[in-house]
Amino acid sequence: VGDDAAVLQWPGDASGVVTTDLLADGTHFELAKHLPERVGRKALAVNLSDLAAMAARPRAVVVSLLLPRGEAAVLARRVLEGMLPLAREHEVAIAGGDTNVWDGRLVISVTALGQLTEKGPLLRSGARPGDALLLTGALGGSRLGHHLDFDPRIREALLLHQRYTLHAGMDISDGLCLDASRLAAASGCGIELELNCVRIAPAAHELARQMKDGRSALEHALTDGEDFELLMAAPRDEAQRILDDQPLNVPISEVGRVIDSPGLWGLYEDGRREPLEPRGFAH
Amino acid sequence: VGDDAAVLQWPGDASGVVTTDLLADGTHFELAKHLPERVGRKALAVNLSDLAAMAARPRAVVVSLLLPRGEAAVLARRVLEGMLPLAREHEVAIAGGDTNVWDGRLVISVTALGQLTEKGPLLRSGARPGDALLLTGALGGSRLGHHLDFDPRIREALLLHQRYTLHAGMDISDGLCLDASRLAAASGCGIELELNCVRIAPAAHELARQMKDGRSALEHALTDGEDFELLMAAPRDEAQRILDDQPLNVPISEVGRVIDSPGLWGLYEDGRREPLEPRGFAH
Repeated sequence: VGDDAAVLQWPGDASGVVTTDLLADGTHFELAKHLPERVGRKALAVNLSDLAAMAARPRAVVVSLLLPRGEAAVLARRVLEGMLPLAREHEVAIAGGDTNVWDGRLVISVTALGQLTEKGPLLRSGARPGDALLLTGALGGSRLGHHLDFDPRIREALLLHQRYTLHAGMDISDGLCLDASRLAAASGCGIELELNCVRIAPAAHELARQMKDGRSALEHALTDGEDFELLMAAPRDEAQRILDDQPLNVPISEVGRVIDSPGLWGLYEDGRREPLEPRGFAH
Repeated sequence: VGDDAAVLQWPGDASGVVTTDLLADGTHFELAKHLPERVGRKALAVNLSDLAAMAARPRAVVVSLLLPRGEAAVLARRVLEGMLPLAREHEVAIAGGDTNVWDGRLVISVTALGQLTEKGPLLRSGARPGDALLLTGALGGSRLGHHLDFDPRIREALLLHQRYTLHAGMDISDGLCLDASRLAAASGCGIELELNCVRIAPAAHELARQMKDGRSALEHALTDGEDFELLMAAPRDEAQRILDDQPLNVPISEVGRVIDSPGLWGLYEDGRREPLEPRGFAH
């Protein structure tokens, strides 16, 4: 603090990863409805989730704020205070930042730096035909509150990546359909989703009830986005070992498999196999 | 590209630095008046200047954009195109980013990662009483155009830090008076500025003529800000060696000295010694 940049002690010669996510009032959150502390926590958590997706250990973040004139100092303090418990929990240094006042709405930009383990990064591009597709937790209805309060799957990603052989991984930020199709495309494969195996969050049922637009809880689970769970591809045998071990505090389910031919397919309980649109939450 | 974060190959075990600066339309630039390419270049350049201030070699940046709805795609392309020549010149990778559309004005957030040399970082806190104060280039009137088109002093900072012994350094972003007082405070010292030794940019004279508010070109040079020149403290003998060598393409001048007692003082040509207000451009 006090210099033009923050010095990072990068222990050993491990490589690093960097990610950035920007959140704006009215677009990613509603300051009229959500406490600044929750918004600050989310801005940090989405970045930590991106590090988890790469199986990188979070080390430091820098935070830039654009603050509405008039309430700037109080708002800045509250946003940062919302970040602190999560930063402490994961031993992440808030290493610096930039604060500006303007006539627009609150903008929070976070850049997170992570350190890779000796196993290197978990990429989207490593899935191979025959791999099983694994998912942590349950999906859907995040907008009812989970999108602000979710726990980034950092410990979970590190544990799985270090203890097992994973071929590919990412976090679900834009919905299972869209993100699975991205993983498939990055790996030059296709994906079949076993739709009755996708765990549906209680909030997805609640949202389906509330919305009355005919979309089922499953549809919410497949497309709502902002779940921030982990989607991973692992060799068949290794996936079975993970499913048997259940080494996390959150359940791991098998939700499909990687196939040779490109595209995204849904397998229904009655045996139907239909193409799924890579549709989801596009920010 | 295509994963949740960018992987950085951090060669050797050199430590790194990270800095972030956010620029908003209407606050740091005026999109109505300035080409998006120039604005993009500035957003990158201010971050590279912060790395130069620490004597760190730029390695990678990530860029987040908030784009006004309607012109988002074209604007994003033009902002990034404005960054490319500067990024190429300094061998900086644009390693990733985040792009969002909203109903507000253009916001550009850049985070830059640099690598330290074996000499470590150049800090603000190392100045000692008796040090000479050195300045690259000339100051003032930046708002007439220089604030968009300046060259961050990366090569200059690295050369000086590696070839000579510098005690402290920073870039002048908020005006010589304010930034010199920050360097003094960080070092627990005071500073005397030889006001007739401060090089005044032609733009400072031009601005003094245009403004007709009685502020002299020197006052503009002392307080305008956004010069992005280097201010450094070096031991007396070493400073003389630098001044004799003039190893840069830009002139280096001696503009004052570090003193024991705190505060910022101006020495006038007629021998007066008066306190200077640490006043400048506060973003």
